Amino acid sequence: MQDYWFYEKHTEGYEVRWRITEILHQEATPYQKLAVIETVEWGRALILDGVLQIADKDEYIYHEMITHVTMNGHPHPQDMLIIGGGDGGALREAVKHPDLRHLDLVEIDRRVAEISQQYFPRVSCAFADPRVNVHFADGFDYIKAPVRQYDLVIVDSSDPVGPSIKLFSEEFYRDLHQILRPDGMVVVQSESPVFYADQFAACHANLRQVFPIVEVYLAPIATYVSGPWSFTIGSKRYDPRTINNEQPVTTGLQYYTEELHRAAFCLPGFVRELILK
Amino acid sequence: MQDYWFYEKHTEGYEVRWRITEILHQEATPYQKLAVIETVEWGRALILDGVLQIADKDEYIYHEMITHVTMNGHPHPQDMLIIGGGDGGALREAVKHPDLRHLDLVEIDRRVAEISQQYFPRVSCAFADPRVNVHFADGFDYIKAPVRQYDLVIVDSSDPVGPSIKLFSEEFYRDLHQILRPDGMVVVQSESPVFYADQFAACHANLRQVFPIVEVYLAPIATYVSGPWSFTIGSKRYDPRTINNEQPVTTGLQYYTEELHRAAFCLPGFVRELILK
Repeated sequence: MQDYWFYEKHTEGYEVRWRITEILHQEATPYQKLAVIETVEWGRALILDGVLQIADKDEYIYHEMITHVTMNGHPHPQDMLIIGGGDGGALREAVKHPDLRHLDLVEIDRRVAEISQQYFPRVSCAFADPRVNVHFADGFDYIKAPVRQYDLVIVDSSDPVGPSIKLFSEEFYRDLHQILRPDGMVVVQSESPVFYADQFAACHANLRQVFPIVEVYLAPIATYVSGPWSFTIGSKRYDPRTINNEQPVTTGLQYYTEELHRAAFCLPGFVRELILK
Repeated sequence: MQDYWFYEKHTEGYEVRWRITEILHQEATPYQKLAVIETVEWGRALILDGVLQIADKDEYIYHEMITHVTMNGHPHPQDMLIIGGGDGGALREAVKHPDLRHLDLVEIDRRVAEISQQYFPRVSCAFADPRVNVHFADGFDYIKAPVRQYDLVIVDSSDPVGPSIKLFSEEFYRDLHQILRPDGMVVVQSESPVFYADQFAACHANLRQVFPIVEVYLAPIATYVSGPWSFTIGSKRYDPRTINNEQPVTTGLQYYTEELHRAAFCLPGFVRELILK
């Protein structure tokens, strides 16, 4: 077997490496280094600034969980905004909902969407949905002059380093609060509570400054750092741990189930400790 | 920082490496290669045949989950057997239960217990409990001529390669069934349903040949392969998803909570698919 490897440095003391067979694409966009590789374990993968973002064989876990927990937790997610998510994975899950009538996707890096449409057709398959409007802009700025109000915002960002760092700030969450309807909610990918416990806790604390209801849920994602990955919801009115949607999307999925919806919010003691501080 | 690393090969296409500062001990026992290292990320770790078994900073996750789910799921876990678990971690959790009156621990490799007592005092702290009886023997043979019947058996084995492979066999599970009381149950560590899906599914299928009730629960363990780790229970009478113990142990723990007990049994769709086959 070929001895080519992609090394991913997660911390100073922890790295993983995935065996690869091909480097299909490499470029430096105005925002980041972007690559597409073929891995032995997970199929084709998108790498941004050295970090694996999606892999063909398990991207459904992250995308189902960032999308359906909130869309099923909200009674009527009609108007939606996705910030980031230029690969189209969350978008693909969102358009499965019959409630949806308008979706704005704001991705800073046009090349992510173009490369995803070229190399990840199963992920990027919903860009042409008539309810979808794609904007190539900085999400942080975009929501400062919003055109409309939303029921739901998904912040599908990369890690809080470089351009994404402001997407974890209290200022950003205040702006999100402004563009949400009085019963709106936002979900953000909030990092590993094990390896990036400080970022996880800071994200929670910042959301708590802005939203009356803040809840964390977890999913272990094999292509990310080991242990659980976290998502955090800020909600103005509804408790997202309950399925409040009368037409929840639950069929045809590979990870999310109704039973798992509530279970994902049951946190291990050490994770609860991190957000009680 | 020192550039010393411990490489752990999980599959042909996936390896992790942990930065280390010291190799404290190395030996070849009659059964396996054993090492104790200091990692930057997780503190001191026990390595058997190149695979990380326990690390000081997160061993509680595995040990709490393999022990308290069944001990709280059984109404009266008085007589217990642990097969493997020579580090003493499951033992330490088991003696927290007021129900417990007799515990046999059967470890094949005396050196694991000795090294654990020397290098992992917080893990191996319960060997002196008066209810505990340690036997250095092959668990597979030990249960063929049992001295007593048990309410609960914990199979805390290493991976199903080499000497541990028979601890995943239908024959072994039949023998376990024989030594369990009519309302007894057994829990086995059943590998990663992501990276070792075949072993996970085979373990489940073998238990299903023997026990009327078979249930899987999950916990993501950061020092094991990424994604969820699985445990599988075979039960003669009680549904282990419910806390059936009137004096459950729930305080003073870092991972397990009552809420998490039931949640851990809620399986992602793809895991449920593996065991429906």
